[in-house]
Amino acid sequence: MDTPSDKALVPFVSVENMLALIYEHGIGTCLAELADMIEADFKRWPDFDKTPRVASHSKLGVIELMPTSDGADYAFKFVNGHPSNTKAGLQTVTAFGVLASVETGYPELFSEMTLLTALRTAATSAMVTRALAPKSAKTAAIIGNGAQSEFQILGLAAVCGITDFRLFDIEPSATGRCIANLEGQNVNLTACTSTEEAMEGAEVVTTCTADKSYQTILTDNLVGAGLHINAIGGDCPGKTELHRDILMRSDIFVEYPEQTRIEGDIQQLDPDHPVTELWQVLNGTRSGRTSADQVTVFDGVGFAIEDFSAMRWLREKVADGALTELLDLIADPDDPRDLFGMTKRYAIRAGKAA
Amino acid sequence: MDTPSDKALVPFVSVENMLALIYEHGIGTCLAELADMIEADFKRWPDFDKTPRVASHSKLGVIELMPTSDGADYAFKFVNGHPSNTKAGLQTVTAFGVLASVETGYPELFSEMTLLTALRTAATSAMVTRALAPKSAKTAAIIGNGAQSEFQILGLAAVCGITDFRLFDIEPSATGRCIANLEGQNVNLTACTSTEEAMEGAEVVTTCTADKSYQTILTDNLVGAGLHINAIGGDCPGKTELHRDILMRSDIFVEYPEQTRIEGDIQQLDPDHPVTELWQVLNGTRSGRTSADQVTVFDGVGFAIEDFSAMRWLREKVADGALTELLDLIADPDDPRDLFGMTKRYAIRAGKAA
Repeated sequence: MDTPSDKALVPFVSVENMLALIYEHGIGTCLAELADMIEADFKRWPDFDKTPRVASHSKLGVIELMPTSDGADYAFKFVNGHPSNTKAGLQTVTAFGVLASVETGYPELFSEMTLLTALRTAATSAMVTRALAPKSAKTAAIIGNGAQSEFQILGLAAVCGITDFRLFDIEPSATGRCIANLEGQNVNLTACTSTEEAMEGAEVVTTCTADKSYQTILTDNLVGAGLHINAIGGDCPGKTELHRDILMRSDIFVEYPEQTRIEGDIQQLDPDHPVTELWQVLNGTRSGRTSADQVTVFDGVGFAIEDFSAMRWLREKVADGALTELLDLIADPDDPRDLFGMTKRYAIRAGKAA
Repeated sequence: MDTPSDKALVPFVSVENMLALIYEHGIGTCLAELADMIEADFKRWPDFDKTPRVASHSKLGVIELMPTSDGADYAFKFVNGHPSNTKAGLQTVTAFGVLASVETGYPELFSEMTLLTALRTAATSAMVTRALAPKSAKTAAIIGNGAQSEFQILGLAAVCGITDFRLFDIEPSATGRCIANLEGQNVNLTACTSTEEAMEGAEVVTTCTADKSYQTILTDNLVGAGLHINAIGGDCPGKTELHRDILMRSDIFVEYPEQTRIEGDIQQLDPDHPVTELWQVLNGTRSGRTSADQVTVFDGVGFAIEDFSAMRWLREKVADGALTELLDLIADPDDPRDLFGMTKRYAIRAGKAA
């Protein structure tokens, strides 16, 4: 057999090993570390090769590739979004990703990213909330209590010190499941019967609904002075959550305007409506929150750099090899110009075995 | 443990199993089947969602994602091109790919594609040669005897009935290795000491050199009437193989003009220089070869549909599961809205085990 170089075998993090990683480190620690990693990468934004995601749309959903590189590491994520999957007992969003070396082009880490995307999405919301919400915020409303909600709650708790959460979903069973799942996590959870009730006393609100249509999850009358809004669920063309009037009187913060204007809630606005790029707030070149009365909106759609950060974080966590399997992914003949020779040597091996 | 659905576990074709597949079916059969599959997909070209590949360039090479979809299946390939890798004992080109369901967005097959890309590239050249070369062609020159050369030769033999091959490489050891590797493959091989010598009597020439620069592998005086040229090696900006004069007096056939004008040998020509799209020749709406004297050039750069076809072919070949491993890639809780519940149930399992 061709002796594979150490680069021919690619470490793989399975779903089971991702669960083990979360368990061993604790989900709060994971979310806090991810928030710091994402913030650090956002601060060096100009280092990155940025491109809007490459989407393949169909009637039922979308499949996207999200690549980016900082000149040393390259990462991409494959992710789908199929709201109708739930009816068939499948995930709306599944994902996997790869980290590769820019120097050699060889993949270095392959991982499940359905769980990791939920973590990085929650870590991003929390990182942005830390930057933009009133410092004293203790209460958040969570509108939409689906697959992302527990992660969002634990992110806000771990990163921003928010202690009280007011939950609403059009399906009460979703709220019930979220509360049951978070038992023992040291957060105060209140089930509410309407968005209005959930918004009572909230200083932060996160909307994370899944419907692929123009929705008005939040109406203007519910948005009081000083609120910080994480609008997470409006993340593709034709899918929005906020009433346009809210956007018109808010300061809007985005990951990557070229992408957000197509996919985010701001698809409802003129293409030159002013927005602030988050990385500039984080590195101090633009203002974030400037007054206690200001309404701030994070129009989050998910950007490739967040996945890049997540994969870099994962590489550190699995470096000892305990949570990875090695995949025989890269054909790696002893003489790199002799790819065909592998087939010949295989035939000799197979002949001997027969 | 959450009982994974059959969609949560993704079949994986390792390098070792790809070698087994090639061995079991015979490389000639694989190449002939692939050529037919690629031709069939080219004939239904308008069915496909086409986009130029998404490239991340660096000083040392390029990493590319090549997605496409026909509305039922979605495929993408990750592929790098790093000419300097050879010095470090690594492959210039490595690849892997995924086939996914458009209906659910779930990945259905994950595979090594370094070997599969060599197969599909050779199958494509052969399929095009079958369409464009003089029907009587029996002799081909192969200029550049690196990692792709044996595959290219066996493709032309299996698909076009070419029996005699005249080989030249600036490194004689490459030619020697190619000839040694093809012993027993029922092809007549002649080592030549120059491109001129290799071209003597050739009715087809395939250039598959690896240098990432503007090269003149073929000069105008070497190209006689009636020749068919497969220019395979010039496949990225700044990397060409044919002298411009050859292109100016040839009929040029391409996969996808939007991509080839950037990456192919025709990057040397005006952006509106006439070219013919291969799919139209294959389905009979445009002419291919119209005279015995005509010089035809296939300016091949590799297009996503070829990888799509290769993955579809592979799915058929590995459908019985004998050559796949199942990867625990997709987080798939019993209740799809309860992704977080997986972490909770893992903790219970881990607690019991402790």
